[in-house]
Amino acid sequence: MLVTDLINVRYLSGFTGSNGALLVFADDRGPVLATDGRYRTQAAEQAPDLEVAIERALGRHLIGRAADAGVGKLGFESNVVTVDGFDALTNELTDRNSATELVRAAGTVEALREIKDDGELALLRLACEKADAALADLVERGGLRPGRTEREVSRELEALMLDHGADAISFETIVAAGPHSAIPHHRPTDAVLAHGDFVKIDFGALVAGYHSDMTRTFVLGQAADWQLEIYQLVADAQRAGREALHPGADLRGVDGAARQLIVDAGYGEQFSHGLGHGVGLQIHEAPGIGATSSGTLLERSVVTVEPGVYLPGRGGVRIEDTLVVGSGTGQATAAPELLTRFPKELAVLT
Amino acid sequence: MLVTDLINVRYLSGFTGSNGALLVFADDRGPVLATDGRYRTQAAEQAPDLEVAIERALGRHLIGRAADAGVGKLGFESNVVTVDGFDALTNELTDRNSATELVRAAGTVEALREIKDDGELALLRLACEKADAALADLVERGGLRPGRTEREVSRELEALMLDHGADAISFETIVAAGPHSAIPHHRPTDAVLAHGDFVKIDFGALVAGYHSDMTRTFVLGQAADWQLEIYQLVADAQRAGREALHPGADLRGVDGAARQLIVDAGYGEQFSHGLGHGVGLQIHEAPGIGATSSGTLLERSVVTVEPGVYLPGRGGVRIEDTLVVGSGTGQATAAPELLTRFPKELAVLT
Repeated sequence: MLVTDLINVRYLSGFTGSNGALLVFADDRGPVLATDGRYRTQAAEQAPDLEVAIERALGRHLIGRAADAGVGKLGFESNVVTVDGFDALTNELTDRNSATELVRAAGTVEALREIKDDGELALLRLACEKADAALADLVERGGLRPGRTEREVSRELEALMLDHGADAISFETIVAAGPHSAIPHHRPTDAVLAHGDFVKIDFGALVAGYHSDMTRTFVLGQAADWQLEIYQLVADAQRAGREALHPGADLRGVDGAARQLIVDAGYGEQFSHGLGHGVGLQIHEAPGIGATSSGTLLERSVVTVEPGVYLPGRGGVRIEDTLVVGSGTGQATAAPELLTRFPKELAVLT
Repeated sequence: MLVTDLINVRYLSGFTGSNGALLVFADDRGPVLATDGRYRTQAAEQAPDLEVAIERALGRHLIGRAADAGVGKLGFESNVVTVDGFDALTNELTDRNSATELVRAAGTVEALREIKDDGELALLRLACEKADAALADLVERGGLRPGRTEREVSRELEALMLDHGADAISFETIVAAGPHSAIPHHRPTDAVLAHGDFVKIDFGALVAGYHSDMTRTFVLGQAADWQLEIYQLVADAQRAGREALHPGADLRGVDGAARQLIVDAGYGEQFSHGLGHGVGLQIHEAPGIGATSSGTLLERSVVTVEPGVYLPGRGGVRIEDTLVVGSGTGQATAAPELLTRFPKELAVLT
């Protein structure tokens, strides 16, 4: 198989450069990692057991190697290779009069990545711990208070994650105050936090390539009745979603377990996205957990559970955790392991 | 034409969401922007003059619209659309018994983007000014001194760019001290800056989607002879590269103007990358300026000039500016406008 997706190359080889491709054989012939001259040293360090080829046209070089090796069927990532890239590969085979046949192998490596090994789980735990610690620090030092801007809060939270040893932030931090909290993916602005506002914070830390993902919603001062109502509703739906996480569970059923509570309360239209997604080397990866998902949850997959209710012009609530399905223990009946442990009770900050 | 590259969608429509596609007609029929429900409000705000279609399968919806409109030839971005994505498009046409024919239009929008309009030039100037100001602050407050780590310097510089009003950093900041400066793309570590080190800093600011890109190399304390030698060589090569920037200049010739000096000095093997690249909505865009480039420089394009010499195990120098070809004045003979104005004389920091 010819692997050209950079995250998949990293997953299989350990190489993290910005240009690389990997040829993997079905038999005991060793894989070949191709990259360019900038990464000669890095590739040798990160993938010491692999043959490293320094080339300009990575895909063409590796498909040539496959043809030379007499490979009959060569898998390629049809969900990643572009139309022009595919032409370059087939032209190389034609130029060589090669009998090697290209076959689609979309999602093959992504499916392997869905099941995390112990080393990956350790890094995901660490990433979630750093996010937890940063948010605890932020709250403890009074970082969430009327008068601050969304941008100030976002910058402080990101700095705290780095202080706790995160390599980077996991994605662009969302800090959404007041009416902005009703926008599912809001970018921090100079809007000022005000008394009575919901403040929705969605953020994560990156550790050795692994992402954490967590959302908490706070209220500044005493909560109004409508705020208490939707907060409690989302919290109940989130618990139902977490409790539905078992190896073998139908993905659509997990989404439904949380969604049904929100629909029954009359807010179905205000929960406008899926319940969750896999997390790992990418912030969004397999499996997707939504109303149109197909398939089942796998033991040792790591997923988010993040229902929300958004009332345009007023405010919104999302509560999101990252969890390990089956706790990674091998016991299929085990409850999920919660990785994002910051409390979920509505915190009234004054 | 069906535009699916998100940067190209943004360039043509103003829409900045993470999911969008655009159908543009060759005649006076208005373009159609497709996105999903999360972006209903944002699309209406950012592209008020366009019809906005809220759909799940954006490409399939838009190709259906083209087929319905009786389009004979529909361009698509063959450098962006994947093999699987192309299948979905052709299946949609087959399902409809449509006579619409898909034709390759790779790089069409990228070529338009190469020539910047006044609004774009203003944003690029602003992004470069913020980077200049941040680096000046860093040096002034003694941020570059023995005892600090690469990571500390990087974080301080990034914070200063945000303080100066940058929306974000333009790319992962490179701070490379001592032997690390010989690695062209080094990520900041906990390595401590020491007396006598080269410190190479490559960084940029992002303003309203537009990137700046600049590299400066400092020396901590008195420079050794070998440091003075390669610094002067790279500075001379960089000036030669800048002086070769004229509308109509052969791209390979521009690279050669700088490279020849380094080759003549015996360091050709130690300048292991191209001379520069276009900068705009992407940090790397057309044109590439290298030894294997083809084509010519265009008036109002914005490019970097960044030769380097890297001596493994010892240290390296890169000096990089961002410039407007022809100054954006419409006078083809004008010298380039320098956007990154931080001084390039070797600064000896003690």
